[in-house]
Amino acid sequence: MPVPTILNQAREQLARANRMIAHEGVLDAFGHVTLRHPTDPGRYLMSYSRAPELVQAEDILEFTLDSKPVKPTDIRLYGERVIHGEIYKARPDVNAVCHHHAPSILPFCISGTELKPVYHLGAALGAKAPFWDSRDEFGDTTLIVAKPEEGASLARALDQHWIVLMRRHGATVAGKTLEELMFRAIYTARNAALQSQAYTLGHVSPLTATEAELAGEYNLRPGVIARAWEYWTVRLDKAEGSYRARKAKKKPSGKRKTKARR
Amino acid sequence: MPVPTILNQAREQLARANRMIAHEGVLDAFGHVTLRHPTDPGRYLMSYSRAPELVQAEDILEFTLDSKPVKPTDIRLYGERVIHGEIYKARPDVNAVCHHHAPSILPFCISGTELKPVYHLGAALGAKAPFWDSRDEFGDTTLIVAKPEEGASLARALDQHWIVLMRRHGATVAGKTLEELMFRAIYTARNAALQSQAYTLGHVSPLTATEAELAGEYNLRPGVIARAWEYWTVRLDKAEGSYRARKAKKKPSGKRKTKARR
Amino acid sequence: MPVPTILNQAREQLARANRMIAHEGVLDAFGHVTLRHPTDPGRYLMSYSRAPELVQAEDILEFTLDSKPVKPTDIRLYGERVIHGEIYKARPDVNAVCHHHAPSILPFCISGTELKPVYHLGAALGAKAPFWDSRDEFGDTTLIVAKPEEGASLARALDQHWIVLMRRHGATVAGKTLEELMFRAIYTARNAALQSQAYTLGHVSPLTATEAELAGEYNLRPGVIARAWEYWTVRLDKAEGSYRARKAKKKPSGKRKTKARR
Amino acid sequence: MPVPTILNQAREQLARANRMIAHEGVLDAFGHVTLRHPTDPGRYLMSYSRAPELVQAEDILEFTLDSKPVKPTDIRLYGERVIHGEIYKARPDVNAVCHHHAPSILPFCISGTELKPVYHLGAALGAKAPFWDSRDEFGDTTLIVAKPEEGASLARALDQHWIVLMRRHGATVAGKTLEELMFRAIYTARNAALQSQAYTLGHVSPLTATEAELAGEYNLRPGVIARAWEYWTVRLDKAEGSYRARKAKKKPSGKRKTKARR
Repeated sequence: MPVPTILNQAREQLARANRMIAHEGVLDAFGHVTLRHPTDPGRYLMSYSRAPELVQAEDILEFTLDSKPVKPTDIRLYGERVIHGEIYKARPDVNAVCHHHAPSILPFCISGTELKPVYHLGAALGAKAPFWDSRDEFGDTTLIVAKPEEGASLARALDQHWIVLMRRHGATVAGKTLEELMFRAIYTARNAALQSQAYTLGHVSPLTATEAELAGEYNLRPGVIARAWEYWTVRLDKAEGSYRARKAKKKPSGKRKTKARR
Repeated sequence: MPVPTILNQAREQLARANRMIAHEGVLDAFGHVTLRHPTDPGRYLMSYSRAPELVQAEDILEFTLDSKPVKPTDIRLYGERVIHGEIYKARPDVNAVCHHHAPSILPFCISGTELKPVYHLGAALGAKAPFWDSRDEFGDTTLIVAKPEEGASLARALDQHWIVLMRRHGATVAGKTLEELMFRAIYTARNAALQSQAYTLGHVSPLTATEAELAGEYNLRPGVIARAWEYWTVRLDKAEGSYRARKAKKKPSGKRKTKARR
Repeated sequence: MPVPTILNQAREQLARANRMIAHEGVLDAFGHVTLRHPTDPGRYLMSYSRAPELVQAEDILEFTLDSKPVKPTDIRLYGERVIHGEIYKARPDVNAVCHHHAPSILPFCISGTELKPVYHLGAALGAKAPFWDSRDEFGDTTLIVAKPEEGASLARALDQHWIVLMRRHGATVAGKTLEELMFRAIYTARNAALQSQAYTLGHVSPLTATEAELAGEYNLRPGVIARAWEYWTVRLDKAEGSYRARKAKKKPSGKRKTKARR
Repeated sequence: MPVPTILNQAREQLARANRMIAHEGVLDAFGHVTLRHPTDPGRYLMSYSRAPELVQAEDILEFTLDSKPVKPTDIRLYGERVIHGEIYKARPDVNAVCHHHAPSILPFCISGTELKPVYHLGAALGAKAPFWDSRDEFGDTTLIVAKPEEGASLARALDQHWIVLMRRHGATVAGKTLEELMFRAIYTARNAALQSQAYTLGHVSPLTATEAELAGEYNLRPGVIARAWEYWTVRLDKAEGSYRARKAKKKPSGKRKTKARR
């Protein structure tokens, strides 16, 4: 067990957030969740390149806001680090970022349909979910946001909002805290599924701007978020429990298996 | 183990109903299930504020019909208690209430489409599922039903029916018994999913008013409900079993972890 | 362990078929699977009234084709036994019957859309899936097929086909063997889901009559069915395993818990 | 434990790929995954006829490119071996093949809708997903691709592409490696689901040809595929773990249960 410093606690929480958001179906083999460094706002924390559902505290590395690893490493890193670094640069109020390809959000990114808050919990998306299209500034690309200028362009599209939809790619979500980020990532995905389904029934009547603002404030209070965090925590523990128990029996030594992957 | 009084048995049943309805996908981190006090009709039983899937008997507190806790407490309570209190006040025949945001029901609340019984089990919804829109009396709000007058307004919309759809929010379901409530909450959600799917095929032909009445009576008989209750109980036991077994090994003491959350 | 007579083996297989079809999502708390008695064609085997997912060999009772229990019992029986008895009477070639409310089939029953084989495995439904509407002969009812004349009417609608869709209610599926029945019940449900989804993409091009006949024959050969049976068996074992293991630890005595339910 | 020769390792990997693709929902009781022999390009490896989710290394047999078993056997073999053999003959660059009936792909096969890359991960399908219709050359059939000339016809339709959609039947996917195949099989299925869902929202805007090419190259690099392979591996281990642990307790002998099935 590592020493429970502020940094180690942050890595534990971040690893858990990766696994929880994945377990709730927002992330699959790809996507990532990061956290601004708890004591140095010029750095952020991010796993090396592995599926979010598998991320453990010891997989978390430190990066500068230019998305360079603080300690040189030959381990494989995520290709889209600049999504996170450029948003942390542009938005001092943002302390956590998730980039994902949630199945309920993608149809909006593919069709260009506007995502709107259609129920009180969906108000966590904020006033607006702007679109960013890689074609506008960069033409035909891999769609991967790998260059600093691509990350900076995405951050400009995010502007002062909390989620940006990326055409034919996915979404990037921001939060003031890791807990708020997780709430927003999961409930914007739920809202998208409901909005899609409502279209098949006919008319979609979203929240008014004022309702969205009031409901957003209400649902992002610490007590509400804590209730959801506890729920997702227990659900993850249920899913991971017996697997962890079997792994623990097999590997009594504390050696990092991940080392072998460098 | 607490003494098996009528009250303690009611708390056990209510906690289990919370977890079962959640396990069947009707509730997620939010929503709540309550029960009128088994010996004092001027009170009702409700968990403190936590996700229904986690609720245990010892989490259940007593409330007056004005939705005040009978014993003062500093634990965090659900913000929408008045939904329950005001319905228990207005409807002496109601002994159990569930407020939820089921994914199959929400599209009806978003689009304003009428929910109708489309198969015999869906007849559990009763003759009609009226709508309530917070805008009608209260204008722009958080959509949260937190004030007594909002709860009373919702209870008026429920009228003598058994489910009320809340625009851009969710649904509130009532039952004569906890078992009936669970059956209705789950099968109205199933009915909604089927009705939505049937629209994509074309014409929707619902039950006639007489069919709905006859099928509703048939399916709400104790034997039918008991069969479903046993089914959902075993499903919950399967899902919870190995998790509970691991928890029991770790925590030999009977201490309430929840106390720490106050 | 009961003596492995032909009858006891049949009860074991039937109980397992109930649980497998339920585990694959075709049955929920309701519906039932039955088998003609292996040595007396004038009788059939059926569980007492409980959810199919819970049915064990010792729950299986014997019934005459008039759907009376061979041994008088005060245990609660399924209300729709006549569906099975009347089909066994009318169709000597049928040895197994399943009545269900599968979520993918119901939209067809609600909208009156014709179910057609849209891929080779869906050809297990046979040349045609006729409709039966309880309103035609009986007007407004509970929709429950409880009277002998209702069962006989349904059997007439089934005619020489292998599945009949019941308007606003569900479906009844027949098979020459229990294995064939299970294959047909599951793959007609899968076919329905695919057909519904294909409509959202536009034109639906089903199998020709000859294709349906050839593919149906091919897929109902014993080798094909055995492959599917093994698959569903292992899936059920995976799902039931840890639950059964825990139950076995708790209840060392072989007493039937179900006796208490009479 | 068999000796870890190249062949035995290939059989282990192939068995695991069968189970992983099945576990991710692309295969059910039917379909198959094969691998070109690692040292003899004139042979391929394939399980005997059982559901892919159950395939173990010891179930894998060797076949000539004419789809005859190298060692005579009386075990039941897959009926559609020629799909694989004829593609290995026609395409020396293909080393792995999967034939499946994924629920998200079938609606395209039923409706004749063109499958297009709608997000970067879907670019794994390549420039185009051609259709093959058994009716064109063979008229009314069982739809099963069992004859060499049917397999050869399908291989011609696949041409230099990486996936071919089979009208009213399913799809066949090819890969340069087993890892690439798995990635393509799973992400083309995900892409299909997203494309279908996007149609319900309105306009579908796919990748440009250049984007598809660039994104396809990016996502099929070894590092990206390895990340997905690790993810699917752990997910399979979680799902299989407790089942395998129980089986191991029951059967201490290493005897092949499958022998009994010949």
